[in-house]
Amino acid sequence: MCVAGCMEAVRAGMSRRGFFGRAGAAAAGFAAVAVAPVPAAAAPRSFERVIDLTHTLTPEFPSFFGIPGIELEPRAEFAKDGYNMYVWKLIEHSGTHLDTPIHFAETGASVEAILADTLVVPFAVVDVADKAENDADYLLSRDDLVAWEGKHGRLPQGCCVAMHAGWGKLALSDPARFIGRDVDGTLHFPGFAPDAATWLLKERAVVGLAVDTLSLDHGPSTDFKTHKVWLPSGRWGLENVANLDQAPPVGATLVVGLPKVKDATGAPVRLFALA
Amino acid sequence: MCVAGCMEAVRAGMSRRGFFGRAGAAAAGFAAVAVAPVPAAAAPRSFERVIDLTHTLTPEFPSFFGIPGIELEPRAEFAKDGYNMYVWKLIEHSGTHLDTPIHFAETGASVEAILADTLVVPFAVVDVADKAENDADYLLSRDDLVAWEGKHGRLPQGCCVAMHAGWGKLALSDPARFIGRDVDGTLHFPGFAPDAATWLLKERAVVGLAVDTLSLDHGPSTDFKTHKVWLPSGRWGLENVANLDQAPPVGATLVVGLPKVKDATGAPVRLFALA
Repeated sequence: MCVAGCMEAVRAGMSRRGFFGRAGAAAAGFAAVAVAPVPAAAAPRSFERVIDLTHTLTPEFPSFFGIPGIELEPRAEFAKDGYNMYVWKLIEHSGTHLDTPIHFAETGASVEAILADTLVVPFAVVDVADKAENDADYLLSRDDLVAWEGKHGRLPQGCCVAMHAGWGKLALSDPARFIGRDVDGTLHFPGFAPDAATWLLKERAVVGLAVDTLSLDHGPSTDFKTHKVWLPSGRWGLENVANLDQAPPVGATLVVGLPKVKDATGAPVRLFALA
Repeated sequence: MCVAGCMEAVRAGMSRRGFFGRAGAAAAGFAAVAVAPVPAAAAPRSFERVIDLTHTLTPEFPSFFGIPGIELEPRAEFAKDGYNMYVWKLIEHSGTHLDTPIHFAETGASVEAILADTLVVPFAVVDVADKAENDADYLLSRDDLVAWEGKHGRLPQGCCVAMHAGWGKLALSDPARFIGRDVDGTLHFPGFAPDAATWLLKERAVVGLAVDTLSLDHGPSTDFKTHKVWLPSGRWGLENVANLDQAPPVGATLVVGLPKVKDATGAPVRLFALA
């Protein structure tokens, strides 16, 4: 199975060309040959500041499903019990959260199987905010990735690639525009083009994608092709990422604070860019 | 209010002696004068490896309350819906998790109010495993902290201090001993002595405590004095921490991956030591 194989490849630190994940590509309906993500090199990494890339999760936070992503029910109250405590009812794909391989596959890694070494990784931020400003359905393209490399060099080994579409600030200030639901019920927000995801899968060693919108696929998608290309290959995705305007295009380390819940297909995360 | 004041002090980067948090100490029933935590210095921090300090959270993970900390209910299934997704029912203080100030106070910071700069901090690990091996009720003392400083130097500014009691490995291998419930229903596991917490509060700039057991207080405690000293002062605690035997006594950076859930009094976290 591709996902298990990818995990083994990562664990073994195999070379970028040393693993071919056909099952994932087949599941995605592509003939592509997957390139396994590998952990970042063990060279020292350093940082001076911490950038919080996480939205606060509330019952009102925009959701794909149009219902509250979380509800808190009091279980203990200070005045009566001497301490405070809630029980959460949580849709696991809410707020700033991670999608696992098994979110869009019959089998694959769930949350607890994602290795720590692939959750602390080099971070590349591709700024398409200017293009997306007047095109809410903007698809980050292979050309955008090539242009980024023209400025900043090759995408780092084992990195996460983020789309900065300028949507993060809308989540609280203008949730209707963040979701972009039109009169026909179609959503409108930017995402990764499936062929850009396929190119990253085939030609670069990338462990994860990140978007400052509700979904890796752009709003009008009904076939979720980017999800289906990316996740079953054994890689993860981050959605509803905040504050990407504060992160440098290259040079930061992304830390994905993913609670280690067995069998979960996703989870709210704390994201830090260490720059 | 102390907690708000602490947060402001942290934000402003005030000096260690620049803030006096009497409300927290009063709430704890102590006449102590609190020393505000301050963020770590902005000097570059570097690391080469990632140590995962997180237990996998399952319904079977040992809990303080003796009931499952989490239950997953399927919301979507791949064969039927084309994707997998669960809804979690979660007691927020389950597995490897964080206690906020408001967990043991009438008012105070909840999860979303804890600043990012106080979640990426120097990490000090105090090894008391030898002493605890034959004394399940062991209390980490002020003397243990002084002895640690004798070997490793003064506790770093803005650090988290962890008790390594050797209990982490028991959580899965011997959950009955991890909890230590005797025939009378009393629990037995190590914790921080209240006077050690008070000393840290008064004399050092520490943002958080961490334990590899179920509670900051040792098992037999019924008054939760360490919780009541520590949390209402505006500081946090981590419980059920894993793999502390892999972390160096000093020199690592702890990253607390705390999902940013509004009003929560605690949350499961992903903990990484960057060493």
